[in-house]
Amino acid sequence: MLNRFFPSIQKPIPFEGKQSKNPLAFKYYDREQRVGGRTMAEHLRFSVAYWHTLKGDGSDMFGDPSFFREWHKPADPLERAKATMDAAFEFFQKLGVDYYCFHDRDIAPEGSTFAETCRNLDVMVAYAKKLQQETGVRLLWGTANLFGNPIYAQGAATSPNAHVMALAAAQVKHALDATRELGGENYVFWGGREGYETLLNTDIKREQQQMARFLHMAVEYKKSIGFAGQFLIEPKPKEPTKHQYDSDAAATLNFLREFGLLDHFKLNIEANHGTLAGHSFEHELAVASAAGMLGSVDANRGDLLLGWDTDQFPTDLYSTTMAMLVILGQNGLGTGGLNFDAKVRRSSTDPVDLFHAHIGGMDAFARALLIAQRIIDDKVLSSFVAERYGSFNGGIGARIMSGKTGLADIEQWVLTQPAPLLQSGRQEMLENILNSYLQ
Amino acid sequence: MLNRFFPSIQKPIPFEGKQSKNPLAFKYYDREQRVGGRTMAEHLRFSVAYWHTLKGDGSDMFGDPSFFREWHKPADPLERAKATMDAAFEFFQKLGVDYYCFHDRDIAPEGSTFAETCRNLDVMVAYAKKLQQETGVRLLWGTANLFGNPIYAQGAATSPNAHVMALAAAQVKHALDATRELGGENYVFWGGREGYETLLNTDIKREQQQMARFLHMAVEYKKSIGFAGQFLIEPKPKEPTKHQYDSDAAATLNFLREFGLLDHFKLNIEANHGTLAGHSFEHELAVASAAGMLGSVDANRGDLLLGWDTDQFPTDLYSTTMAMLVILGQNGLGTGGLNFDAKVRRSSTDPVDLFHAHIGGMDAFARALLIAQRIIDDKVLSSFVAERYGSFNGGIGARIMSGKTGLADIEQWVLTQPAPLLQSGRQEMLENILNSYLQ
Amino acid sequence: MLNRFFPSIQKPIPFEGKQSKNPLAFKYYDREQRVGGRTMAEHLRFSVAYWHTLKGDGSDMFGDPSFFREWHKPADPLERAKATMDAAFEFFQKLGVDYYCFHDRDIAPEGSTFAETCRNLDVMVAYAKKLQQETGVRLLWGTANLFGNPIYAQGAATSPNAHVMALAAAQVKHALDATRELGGENYVFWGGREGYETLLNTDIKREQQQMARFLHMAVEYKKSIGFAGQFLIEPKPKEPTKHQYDSDAAATLNFLREFGLLDHFKLNIEANHGTLAGHSFEHELAVASAAGMLGSVDANRGDLLLGWDTDQFPTDLYSTTMAMLVILGQNGLGTGGLNFDAKVRRSSTDPVDLFHAHIGGMDAFARALLIAQRIIDDKVLSSFVAERYGSFNGGIGARIMSGKTGLADIEQWVLTQPAPLLQSGRQEMLENILNSYLQ
Amino acid sequence: MLNRFFPSIQKPIPFEGKQSKNPLAFKYYDREQRVGGRTMAEHLRFSVAYWHTLKGDGSDMFGDPSFFREWHKPADPLERAKATMDAAFEFFQKLGVDYYCFHDRDIAPEGSTFAETCRNLDVMVAYAKKLQQETGVRLLWGTANLFGNPIYAQGAATSPNAHVMALAAAQVKHALDATRELGGENYVFWGGREGYETLLNTDIKREQQQMARFLHMAVEYKKSIGFAGQFLIEPKPKEPTKHQYDSDAAATLNFLREFGLLDHFKLNIEANHGTLAGHSFEHELAVASAAGMLGSVDANRGDLLLGWDTDQFPTDLYSTTMAMLVILGQNGLGTGGLNFDAKVRRSSTDPVDLFHAHIGGMDAFARALLIAQRIIDDKVLSSFVAERYGSFNGGIGARIMSGKTGLADIEQWVLTQPAPLLQSGRQEMLENILNSYLQ
Repeated sequence: MLNRFFPSIQKPIPFEGKQSKNPLAFKYYDREQRVGGRTMAEHLRFSVAYWHTLKGDGSDMFGDPSFFREWHKPADPLERAKATMDAAFEFFQKLGVDYYCFHDRDIAPEGSTFAETCRNLDVMVAYAKKLQQETGVRLLWGTANLFGNPIYAQGAATSPNAHVMALAAAQVKHALDATRELGGENYVFWGGREGYETLLNTDIKREQQQMARFLHMAVEYKKSIGFAGQFLIEPKPKEPTKHQYDSDAAATLNFLREFGLLDHFKLNIEANHGTLAGHSFEHELAVASAAGMLGSVDANRGDLLLGWDTDQFPTDLYSTTMAMLVILGQNGLGTGGLNFDAKVRRSSTDPVDLFHAHIGGMDAFARALLIAQRIIDDKVLSSFVAERYGSFNGGIGARIMSGKTGLADIEQWVLTQPAPLLQSGRQEMLENILNSYLQ
Repeated sequence: MLNRFFPSIQKPIPFEGKQSKNPLAFKYYDREQRVGGRTMAEHLRFSVAYWHTLKGDGSDMFGDPSFFREWHKPADPLERAKATMDAAFEFFQKLGVDYYCFHDRDIAPEGSTFAETCRNLDVMVAYAKKLQQETGVRLLWGTANLFGNPIYAQGAATSPNAHVMALAAAQVKHALDATRELGGENYVFWGGREGYETLLNTDIKREQQQMARFLHMAVEYKKSIGFAGQFLIEPKPKEPTKHQYDSDAAATLNFLREFGLLDHFKLNIEANHGTLAGHSFEHELAVASAAGMLGSVDANRGDLLLGWDTDQFPTDLYSTTMAMLVILGQNGLGTGGLNFDAKVRRSSTDPVDLFHAHIGGMDAFARALLIAQRIIDDKVLSSFVAERYGSFNGGIGARIMSGKTGLADIEQWVLTQPAPLLQSGRQEMLENILNSYLQ
Repeated sequence: MLNRFFPSIQKPIPFEGKQSKNPLAFKYYDREQRVGGRTMAEHLRFSVAYWHTLKGDGSDMFGDPSFFREWHKPADPLERAKATMDAAFEFFQKLGVDYYCFHDRDIAPEGSTFAETCRNLDVMVAYAKKLQQETGVRLLWGTANLFGNPIYAQGAATSPNAHVMALAAAQVKHALDATRELGGENYVFWGGREGYETLLNTDIKREQQQMARFLHMAVEYKKSIGFAGQFLIEPKPKEPTKHQYDSDAAATLNFLREFGLLDHFKLNIEANHGTLAGHSFEHELAVASAAGMLGSVDANRGDLLLGWDTDQFPTDLYSTTMAMLVILGQNGLGTGGLNFDAKVRRSSTDPVDLFHAHIGGMDAFARALLIAQRIIDDKVLSSFVAERYGSFNGGIGARIMSGKTGLADIEQWVLTQPAPLLQSGRQEMLENILNSYLQ
Repeated sequence: MLNRFFPSIQKPIPFEGKQSKNPLAFKYYDREQRVGGRTMAEHLRFSVAYWHTLKGDGSDMFGDPSFFREWHKPADPLERAKATMDAAFEFFQKLGVDYYCFHDRDIAPEGSTFAETCRNLDVMVAYAKKLQQETGVRLLWGTANLFGNPIYAQGAATSPNAHVMALAAAQVKHALDATRELGGENYVFWGGREGYETLLNTDIKREQQQMARFLHMAVEYKKSIGFAGQFLIEPKPKEPTKHQYDSDAAATLNFLREFGLLDHFKLNIEANHGTLAGHSFEHELAVASAAGMLGSVDANRGDLLLGWDTDQFPTDLYSTTMAMLVILGQNGLGTGGLNFDAKVRRSSTDPVDLFHAHIGGMDAFARALLIAQRIIDDKVLSSFVAERYGSFNGGIGARIMSGKTGLADIEQWVLTQPAPLLQSGRQEMLENILNSYLQ
């Protein structure tokens, strides 16, 4: 096991059970424990986000970096990238996680030309491949950072400048190559700059067409190289852009449908992006799942009293439980997983805080998995729901849904009936039941 | 001219020009003034919302009615409905507006049975038809109130109770009949209760299917009766429901696409509903228009510091100007119009306040029409936008958009080029230009 | 025990422990269980809110009443008031709660004149007094409804109309008399209409002076009648008013300080009012408590994705636990209590839902009490906090806080020192610890 | 005139009047034009914010710097600081603005020790003094940046680490010295990190006491050095901190009152900070002004659909007009001014965009000054307001406010009167009047 950057953690984080007072042990996440036919590790497929955990420096809009990581010290960019990757795989091993995710620019430094940037990426992909082989850690997904470089300030695929769009296309080609080379199980598109700052200078219809063309080219290229990973698109309503086109699950689905892309993508739902869009995490999951389009999850939490992407680690058991109910309800995420797109707070300056944070997130989802499975096994919600809609199992309900009747016929039926009766929705009772499972 | 309920207004509100100090005169709205080839009246197609203006009583969630309208005094429900309609047409005439909109339950009282309720509606439709003929005022759109009656508390089309869904279907049939009878130019669906309060008791996929089935039945019925009006669907994210399925323009389009309804509907965009969804009014208009789906507008304004539908009269010239830019940009609203889904504040207790309010809204849109037309004529925005995207008129931009190239080819091109240059987006300059037109 | 309106509940709700599956039993609230030196009942002092639980009818801004309560059926207003009060005390007894709260207009109907209204109140106060004596249930606080009647549409104490302000003063006099007569332990002022709709017609300085004068008169009257209860003032930022002067705890304290009222009031903090103000429930509690001004609590929860007062029952254990940490930290609420200013959802139409709702809220606070007491006993947070600020126990920290040094001296000290070191704030570790106590 | 960094602007921005189509000319701001007894320049006292305009680099939370300023190019920190200051004064002169504002860290680079940092500041203060003398541009206010350096991540005055608090104290001493040396007319305290991230590790009462002690030391030091400038404190609710203690005007006043600091401070109100707190800009101004505590203004605008400090230039004429009504209503800002705490958008990469932005902001306030003065001269609002509260000029209203009556007496009076009548608040009419002045 690698052992250089986290010397205070000398062995993998152990599972000690819920009575443990050891803050550096799992209390719920026991990777081989079987729940409903799968191990916890198979259910949860946890992934570390390279950008936050390895590259994060604690800076915010009003403050300079507050993290002084040993692995950020080498002066040479490629040496720094390698030290960072060493730290990454040491962290993955000690945490006991099977997956990680990255942007091209997280793992490899930009060069002075695009060609040099591509070469840097090639070097680091080879380096990552070796570490993956040595450790068994795999790539959940890769992606291209099309938002950090100021050339993308007015969009990448949707830039008003065709040369910029071309550059983005070339960059995505390389990121796809890198993801394939590393056996990535998915590839994510998040269009942080694909939107507008002001309608005064923007033609949104044209930009949507550019976006669609861009994604179609990616689909074609994927086929041409035989990359089998799932394409994912990640909604977010705003930040950094004033308005992002893929603002929520429904808007993204609308775009995919309009431009004939639905068959080639699934959604990567992030909790905090959902709340920024005015929806709950579980709403976004449920919308994606209902459309058969929930592919993967960025597992974090936002602060609903703050208006930006706080990317906190997921510790709210209500939220993780509701998420696991949706995920179990569709029999898992397939090739997707739970990627901790989350960062420690700016004041959590100790590298050990990275362990605290991930342990908390993993335990919150493991605990939620146990809770959700018990709720499903006990049928406490499903039997209520089945009964609630029971009137559609026959009679007028079945007739309407079968398409065999119309408004005029229905009116005749209504006129023969007494006024309908509506049962209580029992929201408070159901909320109490949820609380009773939260143990 | 009718002259009973608004005795302090003895003649139609006059146009007096912008120097007038008369609060009960139009300063910008001159109905016959031609702007870009049409009269103001033809452009703006203003409509009064029956529910707020005639039926509103000033109550709010913490307070009893504060308006004591003369036309609400008759004790008999049908007599009260007729007095209210008399007041309505007197108001339309004195204000000088060509259209109105209603829900079935605004114009006719509910009876003790559904059959009686239908009969009441028939009586009032006949009454309205006569007043329309006498005054020349027309019906912009009708709709069914599927949210006020507590039987719809858990949804109408999406009720878990099939009998309730059937009742809603029968009610819509009658509202469609009424709208056709009165020559309505459109028919609106707003699903205020079509959504959920808690996911704990809800099957959203099933409910979406119910909604789709319901709308397909309405489309079929429309054909069967030969109603030629445009069907409109109105997005809103929440209130009264915790989450409404048609949460914004994009979500509504997604739903229509998923269920094969796109050809049969356009969108009715309301300013305040857009802001509740976290979007600007103009964003929602632009999204609908870009999809070729902007059909009509509920012209009001919200208070962005308040989290509910304040339905204030539109007086913000920035907002009305941006709206008119989108509307002129698609050459008008067709059979749609600008319906004032807006109410006077609870403290504006004097019936004359209804005139102040509508005059302000009409002037704000008339002034916006003049401003927007000048901006268009001067090409100050359009020429900037055309130049901004100019790189797509040839070269790599044109090649990409024509579909004749792919990622691998583009990469080769990029590698031969120097780094791209990005021009300023000039947002501040454009905002200043907008201000200079706001005269 | 009264037994007329809730026939399905034949005996008081029992405590059955956390393994119980009976939804109509307490799982955590065991009123005589001692926690840290007091019984649960002494700690929690639960109160039922008369307005929501007895008077609520399920209506919302878009919908008619959905609750059809047996006790609302008598046609005569006073008979209806008495039936309602019978239902109230039956509910209190069956639920096993010691307190209730009311507005004057909840318990007694308005008459056609102010004099008649006062007489109605007198009748109902006598009726309540008898029921209190028979059941042992007590009055946590009384208050005057100065927001429902449209005469208060532009404010009560802050009305621009002196006659209205006088009417409000007279009404408060009677509500104070009633509260004293019923042994109320507190009296609450919530100024739902004390604010403004638009600054265009408002003189806020004058209105603040009116408000202060009004409260000073109440303080004088309280003394004159020998009423010993605590005066409480309840912050809320908005709704129904666009801006309410007492917008949050800090704004209310500022007002009390500016006008010399601080000694005569404490704060009644409501969870949902805090979140509407952009603060967490625990923030508002902590601010009030830090100022020595936390007097009582309106225990509910809001929906942070909705912008209005949803007044849901408190079931979020994070929120109730944080609340109990503040409350235990100041050794309880004194004469205050936990009043469920919460309503069942519009679809929870069955009277039994009132039991579900209150049971859930009581259990959520009882469970939070147990959790908070363990956190306190284990010193897991307090010892961390003490150490975090430890540098103020001596050295430069103690010198600064003692007032014995100034900027120039401090600079000299700083120049002699190496750069300071900042320890990790350990937010993630502390959040994990909180989760580990949430059992 | 300096002429090195903005070569495309060869002479001061001219006033050309509202018909001008020149985007680089003032259309309303004519500095010597007299309005109500003062020149526009005397009224408006515009100031440029050094941090945004000179130091801003276009970076955001998701993107690298996008501005490549000539004055940022020197490699040596002090040389870069001097080039930046040269650019600053060139900009001030060409724009034609009389004031600027800075943080210590804007004008001088941090050294490797505190002593070196102080020396750097001394060098740059001397440099600034010379440029002030040469150009006549003055310092509106200075301040210390107590939020950028990671040592302040957990607070400066409210740090849990006494050494950090001491460092902040020493830094403020120097910033005060610098401000006095440069003739600063005010000194501002903005506590961006004075608040908490989580209550789990925070003692808010202790931190408030630290803050108070810190400010008292500053007051004492101010006296000791004979600095005559006004102390200002600037509210903001959040960002970067989760909760900032001085969350809005009322909370700040509460703090100043509680700790005996009221006589030594006024408020510096920022538009965008107000909206983040859930208030309108004019609300915050009005609250501060009503307390006699409005000292200066950070003139910008936020985007109410975005949840962070967008710091856009003020161009909304409704907002600037309402602001000028409050400012004129208190006869100006005294030693305060209108400081453009605003930044050009990340895509506005051309240095000329800095001119567009400031011209737009200055014109928006100049135009608002003209509008507000006309509204005041015409008494259209003031006469309405005077009449609205007229009932307090005599009778029961005067008796109540004089303190000569109490609740019992008032009740007797009320019982002798008919029910009060409430006049319409006429909000819509007043909004229309405001629009009619917006020319």
